[in-house]
Amino acid sequence: MERELRLPHSTLDLDRAGRIGQPEVIYGEGKTAAHIADALEAIAAAGGFAFATRVRAETAAAVGEQLGGRAVYSADARVLCLGTPPVPVGQVGVVSAGTSDEAVAAEVERCAELLGNGVLRVRDVGVAGLHRVLARAEELRACSVVVVVAGMDGALPSVVGGLVACPVIAVPTSVGYGASFGGVAALLAMLNSCAPGVTVVNIDNGFGAAYAASRVNLGRVNP
Amino acid sequence: MERELRLPHSTLDLDRAGRIGQPEVIYGEGKTAAHIADALEAIAAAGGFAFATRVRAETAAAVGEQLGGRAVYSADARVLCLGTPPVPVGQVGVVSAGTSDEAVAAEVERCAELLGNGVLRVRDVGVAGLHRVLARAEELRACSVVVVVAGMDGALPSVVGGLVACPVIAVPTSVGYGASFGGVAALLAMLNSCAPGVTVVNIDNGFGAAYAASRVNLGRVNP
Amino acid sequence: MERELRLPHSTLDLDRAGRIGQPEVIYGEGKTAAHIADALEAIAAAGGFAFATRVRAETAAAVGEQLGGRAVYSADARVLCLGTPPVPVGQVGVVSAGTSDEAVAAEVERCAELLGNGVLRVRDVGVAGLHRVLARAEELRACSVVVVVAGMDGALPSVVGGLVACPVIAVPTSVGYGASFGGVAALLAMLNSCAPGVTVVNIDNGFGAAYAASRVNLGRVNP
Amino acid sequence: MERELRLPHSTLDLDRAGRIGQPEVIYGEGKTAAHIADALEAIAAAGGFAFATRVRAETAAAVGEQLGGRAVYSADARVLCLGTPPVPVGQVGVVSAGTSDEAVAAEVERCAELLGNGVLRVRDVGVAGLHRVLARAEELRACSVVVVVAGMDGALPSVVGGLVACPVIAVPTSVGYGASFGGVAALLAMLNSCAPGVTVVNIDNGFGAAYAASRVNLGRVNP
Amino acid sequence: MERELRLPHSTLDLDRAGRIGQPEVIYGEGKTAAHIADALEAIAAAGGFAFATRVRAETAAAVGEQLGGRAVYSADARVLCLGTPPVPVGQVGVVSAGTSDEAVAAEVERCAELLGNGVLRVRDVGVAGLHRVLARAEELRACSVVVVVAGMDGALPSVVGGLVACPVIAVPTSVGYGASFGGVAALLAMLNSCAPGVTVVNIDNGFGAAYAASRVNLGRVNP
Amino acid sequence: MERELRLPHSTLDLDRAGRIGQPEVIYGEGKTAAHIADALEAIAAAGGFAFATRVRAETAAAVGEQLGGRAVYSADARVLCLGTPPVPVGQVGVVSAGTSDEAVAAEVERCAELLGNGVLRVRDVGVAGLHRVLARAEELRACSVVVVVAGMDGALPSVVGGLVACPVIAVPTSVGYGASFGGVAALLAMLNSCAPGVTVVNIDNGFGAAYAASRVNLGRVNP
Amino acid sequence: MERELRLPHSTLDLDRAGRIGQPEVIYGEGKTAAHIADALEAIAAAGGFAFATRVRAETAAAVGEQLGGRAVYSADARVLCLGTPPVPVGQVGVVSAGTSDEAVAAEVERCAELLGNGVLRVRDVGVAGLHRVLARAEELRACSVVVVVAGMDGALPSVVGGLVACPVIAVPTSVGYGASFGGVAALLAMLNSCAPGVTVVNIDNGFGAAYAASRVNLGRVNP
Amino acid sequence: MERELRLPHSTLDLDRAGRIGQPEVIYGEGKTAAHIADALEAIAAAGGFAFATRVRAETAAAVGEQLGGRAVYSADARVLCLGTPPVPVGQVGVVSAGTSDEAVAAEVERCAELLGNGVLRVRDVGVAGLHRVLARAEELRACSVVVVVAGMDGALPSVVGGLVACPVIAVPTSVGYGASFGGVAALLAMLNSCAPGVTVVNIDNGFGAAYAASRVNLGRVNP
Repeated sequence: MERELRLPHSTLDLDRAGRIGQPEVIYGEGKTAAHIADALEAIAAAGGFAFATRVRAETAAAVGEQLGGRAVYSADARVLCLGTPPVPVGQVGVVSAGTSDEAVAAEVERCAELLGNGVLRVRDVGVAGLHRVLARAEELRACSVVVVVAGMDGALPSVVGGLVACPVIAVPTSVGYGASFGGVAALLAMLNSCAPGVTVVNIDNGFGAAYAASRVNLGRVNP
Repeated sequence: MERELRLPHSTLDLDRAGRIGQPEVIYGEGKTAAHIADALEAIAAAGGFAFATRVRAETAAAVGEQLGGRAVYSADARVLCLGTPPVPVGQVGVVSAGTSDEAVAAEVERCAELLGNGVLRVRDVGVAGLHRVLARAEELRACSVVVVVAGMDGALPSVVGGLVACPVIAVPTSVGYGASFGGVAALLAMLNSCAPGVTVVNIDNGFGAAYAASRVNLGRVNP
Repeated sequence: MERELRLPHSTLDLDRAGRIGQPEVIYGEGKTAAHIADALEAIAAAGGFAFATRVRAETAAAVGEQLGGRAVYSADARVLCLGTPPVPVGQVGVVSAGTSDEAVAAEVERCAELLGNGVLRVRDVGVAGLHRVLARAEELRACSVVVVVAGMDGALPSVVGGLVACPVIAVPTSVGYGASFGGVAALLAMLNSCAPGVTVVNIDNGFGAAYAASRVNLGRVNP
Repeated sequence: MERELRLPHSTLDLDRAGRIGQPEVIYGEGKTAAHIADALEAIAAAGGFAFATRVRAETAAAVGEQLGGRAVYSADARVLCLGTPPVPVGQVGVVSAGTSDEAVAAEVERCAELLGNGVLRVRDVGVAGLHRVLARAEELRACSVVVVVAGMDGALPSVVGGLVACPVIAVPTSVGYGASFGGVAALLAMLNSCAPGVTVVNIDNGFGAAYAASRVNLGRVNP
Repeated sequence: MERELRLPHSTLDLDRAGRIGQPEVIYGEGKTAAHIADALEAIAAAGGFAFATRVRAETAAAVGEQLGGRAVYSADARVLCLGTPPVPVGQVGVVSAGTSDEAVAAEVERCAELLGNGVLRVRDVGVAGLHRVLARAEELRACSVVVVVAGMDGALPSVVGGLVACPVIAVPTSVGYGASFGGVAALLAMLNSCAPGVTVVNIDNGFGAAYAASRVNLGRVNP
Repeated sequence: MERELRLPHSTLDLDRAGRIGQPEVIYGEGKTAAHIADALEAIAAAGGFAFATRVRAETAAAVGEQLGGRAVYSADARVLCLGTPPVPVGQVGVVSAGTSDEAVAAEVERCAELLGNGVLRVRDVGVAGLHRVLARAEELRACSVVVVVAGMDGALPSVVGGLVACPVIAVPTSVGYGASFGGVAALLAMLNSCAPGVTVVNIDNGFGAAYAASRVNLGRVNP
Repeated sequence: MERELRLPHSTLDLDRAGRIGQPEVIYGEGKTAAHIADALEAIAAAGGFAFATRVRAETAAAVGEQLGGRAVYSADARVLCLGTPPVPVGQVGVVSAGTSDEAVAAEVERCAELLGNGVLRVRDVGVAGLHRVLARAEELRACSVVVVVAGMDGALPSVVGGLVACPVIAVPTSVGYGASFGGVAALLAMLNSCAPGVTVVNIDNGFGAAYAASRVNLGRVNP
Repeated sequence: MERELRLPHSTLDLDRAGRIGQPEVIYGEGKTAAHIADALEAIAAAGGFAFATRVRAETAAAVGEQLGGRAVYSADARVLCLGTPPVPVGQVGVVSAGTSDEAVAAEVERCAELLGNGVLRVRDVGVAGLHRVLARAEELRACSVVVVVAGMDGALPSVVGGLVACPVIAVPTSVGYGASFGGVAALLAMLNSCAPGVTVVNIDNGFGAAYAASRVNLGRVNP
């Protein structure tokens, strides 16, 4: 029988790790510090470790206070964790196109680490200066899976998808203005990538890309 | 140095298999029989095997004539192949929501096979009758990667994503009418899946999903 | 002849209860406290009871002052009422997918109560952990009508629509980011639900869903 | 345990009537005559009665041949049924705005009848000549539920929603051109109806509206 | 030869009144008080009268100071004028659907007056309570032109268009939420009005509607 | 009391001429020849004259046969009329941007004539060669109302709106390809016209523009 | 004074070559053979040379007959010309991403030639196999202007824009399916190109790109 | 070999000037003062000159402090430069439609200057008063390239494109409200311009237009 925990404001799915190999992760956007702290404690109590994404700095500080300083906050990734994360295995490549995509790339990297994956960082290698990504191709070919983060024209995953054999997961970012429509231009470009087998997650969904990459990497490391 | 072949109408990328582990596949939509036949021969000559997707029955027949009957056509998947496909290894699960999604599911299955993967078929298990997909959960948990094909509300990948630990790739189909907007409703639902780590390909892109699944499965079988 | 009341800023439809069985309800968004207070008094004077939706806390406080503390405010639902609400009869099920959908679910519940309906609350039972909603199926089958509140992929109404025989009303919420487009993804998924006979209201329209549910429940309890 | 039937091309949900009170109905669009005939027979064998929607005249003729003339076809509604439909009870009002909305209105009416409901027809009463719908208000007030079918500006449900107390279900039609965007204008107008408690189904989804109306009417007649 | 005036920040079209019968009007949104004051003075100097729309209260106060108190501000319409407006002739009907549409209706009314038209105000007569607009039909039939202001479902112009013989100009407002998409739902409904000969202006464009109405009314009064 | 006529397939509004000064006009799209013929006869019987728009040549021929040759068909405008049209008075200017807009311009012209208006034709005067429209400005200034028909960039109404004092009604056409989106580009440009007081009708709605122009012109000629 | 020629169906702008350096070109889509033939003759009579785009093969044949075989048709580009084209000078690079973009690339090339430009063809060099375009970089750097034609992800202009110093004009094509939305994905990617100074024309507008390139090249060759 | 510089937060492309003739320019939106200052110094160190766009006044002040006052800020254009800009050659015409488009026009002008081009300013010459732009036609014909900046209906580039022979680059601005959709209306109008050979950049992309114009002008001045 499945275990679930009914808190006043949520019904936690405590058996998710058993079912799908990874814990329930808390989406912090719009939640109160108390809510996040309670959920972190409940999940960590059941599995030894928990984390929340999209946590603003002030909220993180308030959660930290409630938890007596046991929570660790990564400001650039806006991720807050409680307990001892797993030892990283394998390697997930995280490639980003421009300096403006850094926040999303940081979310991918931190979440991938907390889900138990090693990470290779390759930043600011947009296609308007191709030599930058070409110079890193060998390193990327050594990864189990590559996550490509790009806004604006969303062109980088098509280039990377033609350079590596492993799965490529594209994350459109909301970076841009005008006809970028908050990341829609990049999203559509990625869905229409001319490199075969590129898959896509929601705009700015760094966590989702990390989770998907983790499904690949952990299955590959421990098939 | 990279090898490429300039035909009158295209520039074939003969080293793609070397670079990304799988051959260039011909997108047959809107191409003439002569064009497809030439390209199949050129790729098969370089690597022993080639195939084309989105080939209509009449075009397939004409290609067959030009190639002296050596090409094999899968009518439901609209895929045409030349030469000896690789021996399938591992297992890709292909789940579809309704009978109307069958054409896209068939493209996923046939392409996955031709790219060297074993396939498990699970058809017509939409969420309005949940017991149908729940009855197949064990089989799906034994796969390296699961492709979920659905039109209309695109709800099935969220359910499957909560049942298995391996990568889940969602394919929206253009099945539906009115506010399905040719598959956009399903596409958006999948991009916003509440199950973490579901990735998405373009509407009706059965080939792309198969290719992505193959990147996962082959990397897992031969890490 | 129809009665109407011309206030300086609005023309109240005092016979609506006579015509369609339920009173005119005040939409508080963007209205001043004075405007809301006047309208509440006018409607309550005509029928003994009145309420307003989408009232911010500060506005509610100001209205309360003008009305001498006679108004009751439900903070989570942002609903303000004046006078004695009807005794609830029958039962409306209100199911929500995630903790982020709570505000809309609260509006549904409070409005349904104030319109004279009993309410069954089922919260945070999204489809990525199916056992949560399956565990509540029997309770839902005992309702006259079920309102399902969900953002992101909008998948829950399709699952609930396959579990109960009574009318199912879906409320998309604006919860999400990126390609959720402020609730459009959930709205489209619900309009394309694979469960037959699911109907839909506007994004975040908890009041509208409650009103529609009330049209069903009261007609069923007093046919 | 749930019963299901695996045909070569579909998995029929034979217990749906038990679970949600009404049988699985076949969506005929894009299905072959053989497929439709097989499914009709299987469902009718399990429950005594079955029908399919969106069946073209030629397909209906071919199904009729396979079933030895036992199927009955309603050409205006494009609905094909097999076996003895239930005796109609209660009354569903079906109101349409213009002569161009007739095909969708016919689908609503025929499906409502086949699902066991009585039907009141009110046609071509668009709001540019208000006296036409006002003349029918009393008849509509006697219904358990009213379905309003309209294209173009989608204004009729707002008028009807202000005239009756029972549930009002709006069906946008794809009638129109230019900025009607295949029914989107009407759909949006209906989702934003100024009459409270109007619910909406997909564009041209006459079947869905009938099914939803049937959930209301049958629950009201046999609470 | 056409006269124009090059200010540091704009090129005023001083002969517009000569060419098209009405003066250039200043669009105040985003302009500084100094810019508005200069332009008002220049136009008023050329023609005796000038006004600006979309002027915030603080900006109006600042302009007033610069002009030594000679400017008159209408707060509800956000219109600021300088000099003596023309004596109103004829009658423009201005009908609004809900109390939330009041700001736009006020802009229509004030601009119509300042352009030299008499105005009949009919407010808060939405179609969910039809008797309200029907009670005013005779008054509306006495106007030269009717402007109808509505948000949400945009249904009111279709009803008014069926009641009067004169030109009907529809103004969609951005009132609403969710699938109203900032007035797009109302705009589309109005463009698809089932009442023939309804014309439409941009969302919230009260000034444009007043100007168009003025083109009709003044041409009718002085043909 | 209002007169209406219930035909088998429609409810004709015979008092519309009394209420709004102009007869009900039949929208021929998708209607059968028999339906159109019946409706023409019924309206002509009540008022001496009737016409239908969007009638294909073959349908017109079939209607002609049923009516014994009494109907007159204008092929370029696709308009079919029965009985003696009114004597034209006043003058409606009809300006079109390119030769591809001719079909819509013809509908405007023919409908305006049949509704009793004189017509001035000014064709193929797009803004890429400004001298063409400038050469006709004097003629246009003599009209009571000007209808401007344009596809693609929809720029012509902004130019004409700056040249004349009378009402200007813009008709976007679906002429174009790619990012014209079936006339949406022209529609948006017209709704955002920088010339004040331009009003807009639906894409390709030549009839609606003529009807609106007729509301203006007839009111001006007989105020 | 400007010369113009009023044909029965169009008003030709005979002085355009004088004003903007290049002749009026006939847009053949939807025009009859007679219309095209008349216009070609009129323009060629005024300037010695004329051509029409988007002419179908059958129409071209009919025009050819009317003109006594003097017209020359380029089937792949669907361009028909009459008279002696100018001698090409300078060099316009035309780069296309995939074999499916060939038809648009052919229109660019043929129109550029007929407008008096030399052309360098670089075909089928999409970014999934980067070495193909890198191998041609030197040749492209020798051009005065480069036109890049691409569908699907529209990534190629960003790569080319980073390789050359001259103007880069991007043409999105409608090639693709699903979320390519008829070329919108490519259009948006190009408008958001990360390579600075890339400009864009309408989807499939090969003629427009050629004309723009010609404005650059001819101005550069004869400044 | 290509030179690149890896700063902590970005990978600068120092050889871009060598490859494409113009330096990498820093996009300041969302970057910190420290980041901008570091990048300006690095690029200026490599090439003697650097600039950043979209820099807010406060950020510019902070950068100025870090750089010891050596940076020059243009407030209206929001551009910040370091070092000695090139001597301007040739002439780029910059035409804007309304006073609200001034900010974008200023960005075009300043960037064009800093990239080494002479600039001709023509402001506030919208098409509703045509004489304003016609009066400047001769000056525009003397430019190497013309940039046209317009919001709302985006009509001005079509008029200018018919007046000059040189390249015309259109910049849609986000000026407007309602159905301008943040500049989409102007963007679409420009993509569909009836004047041949107009090219378009992203909404509000003044920098991109200047860069594209510079590619044209510098190539023309030094072919």
